[in-house]
Amino acid sequence: MAKPEAVIIVAGGRGERMNANIPKQFLLLGGRPILMHTIEAFHRFNNSMPLVVVLPSAQISYWEELCKKHAFTIGHTVVAGGDNRFQSVKQGLSVVQLPALVAVHDGVRPLVSSRTIERCFGAADAYDAAIPVMDVVESIRQVDENGSKALDRTRIKTVQTPQVFDGELLTKAYKQDFSPFFTDDASVVEAYGKQVTLVEGNSENIKITTAIDLQIAEMLLPVLNR
Amino acid sequence: MAKPEAVIIVAGGRGERMNANIPKQFLLLGGRPILMHTIEAFHRFNNSMPLVVVLPSAQISYWEELCKKHAFTIGHTVVAGGDNRFQSVKQGLSVVQLPALVAVHDGVRPLVSSRTIERCFGAADAYDAAIPVMDVVESIRQVDENGSKALDRTRIKTVQTPQVFDGELLTKAYKQDFSPFFTDDASVVEAYGKQVTLVEGNSENIKITTAIDLQIAEMLLPVLNR
Repeated sequence: MAKPEAVIIVAGGRGERMNANIPKQFLLLGGRPILMHTIEAFHRFNNSMPLVVVLPSAQISYWEELCKKHAFTIGHTVVAGGDNRFQSVKQGLSVVQLPALVAVHDGVRPLVSSRTIERCFGAADAYDAAIPVMDVVESIRQVDENGSKALDRTRIKTVQTPQVFDGELLTKAYKQDFSPFFTDDASVVEAYGKQVTLVEGNSENIKITTAIDLQIAEMLLPVLNR
Repeated sequence: MAKPEAVIIVAGGRGERMNANIPKQFLLLGGRPILMHTIEAFHRFNNSMPLVVVLPSAQISYWEELCKKHAFTIGHTVVAGGDNRFQSVKQGLSVVQLPALVAVHDGVRPLVSSRTIERCFGAADAYDAAIPVMDVVESIRQVDENGSKALDRTRIKTVQTPQVFDGELLTKAYKQDFSPFFTDDASVVEAYGKQVTLVEGNSENIKITTAIDLQIAEMLLPVLNR
């Protein structure tokens, strides 16, 4: 029997980079908060999947107001986050019922396609750890103590989310002490000793972190093939 | 005395990726061909700089028509390109008078800022080889025979153009045999044994290779701080 699926959507942004007042996950995309699009992407893929949303505790009541205002009715569990992304994922994990395949997804990646989600869950079902990646189009260079050197760009991938794992594996990996090298969940699981499988992401699945990103997302929203 | 400056703008696109008919360097941005914006960026920086434009030979007469149609009067030398970018840069170099600091720039990067151009020429004047780079915002992974591993993204940079070099150095480096690892001019010069200096690029300085990129460029054009 296939394992049940769940997702932890991490929306930790405090809004410093884009706008002093509105955290980026609440900025409007197509007239509605980015985070609603993100939740919908997973609900569209599997409408019985538990949806866990991790928010800074100070934003939870504002989010509840937004849900009322926008008549957002997709059921989800809200959890208060920690001091950094690592702690926030841990908080989210604590409310997920196992066994399950658990996706961790950035709240500010609303344009993930169902196909990307499907590829990640499919590969995680087979190999316990799967992440979506994209090729790079520009030349890439690595800086070191002696200067810098060109890297073979055909071997370099940028990493998106959702990153999907066997829930028990992910829970154990997140019991490690925090390291500054943990930039995503794959790096946490890898530090625990498990290789991750790479699948293809989708080019529209951008992380919205600047005002320009938001404009690009507005442009992509109507043309995204979900 | 400061060395004279020159630029080779390489516009080799045949249009396969975006549109079967119009090579991308001729697509309209703000109502005019992308390549005109690119030429203007360098003319704006230094209006006495020799401007060499390398185009596939089959496109030269079409380009001349476009210049008439759009009343484009900035003087430039058109050179027929070779079979690949490496050959095209070589063709361009053959008409540049040395000594000079020579920039090589992608024809489809019209949104390079004067400040980026200035930083590149300034560092090349001091160190003979300088390229503009940007930080990456996403997690980065390197694929190898055994799978993949997370790279420290603070050490990874994406590479833009203009890449600026002492002209004699660049000419000698381009006498090497072609290698598939030559993805940009820095990699050619580095293979010749010379380290390149990294300076900051500008985020708007994107390489237009897809229809979405063109839409993004349309969005950036009016807000670009040149």
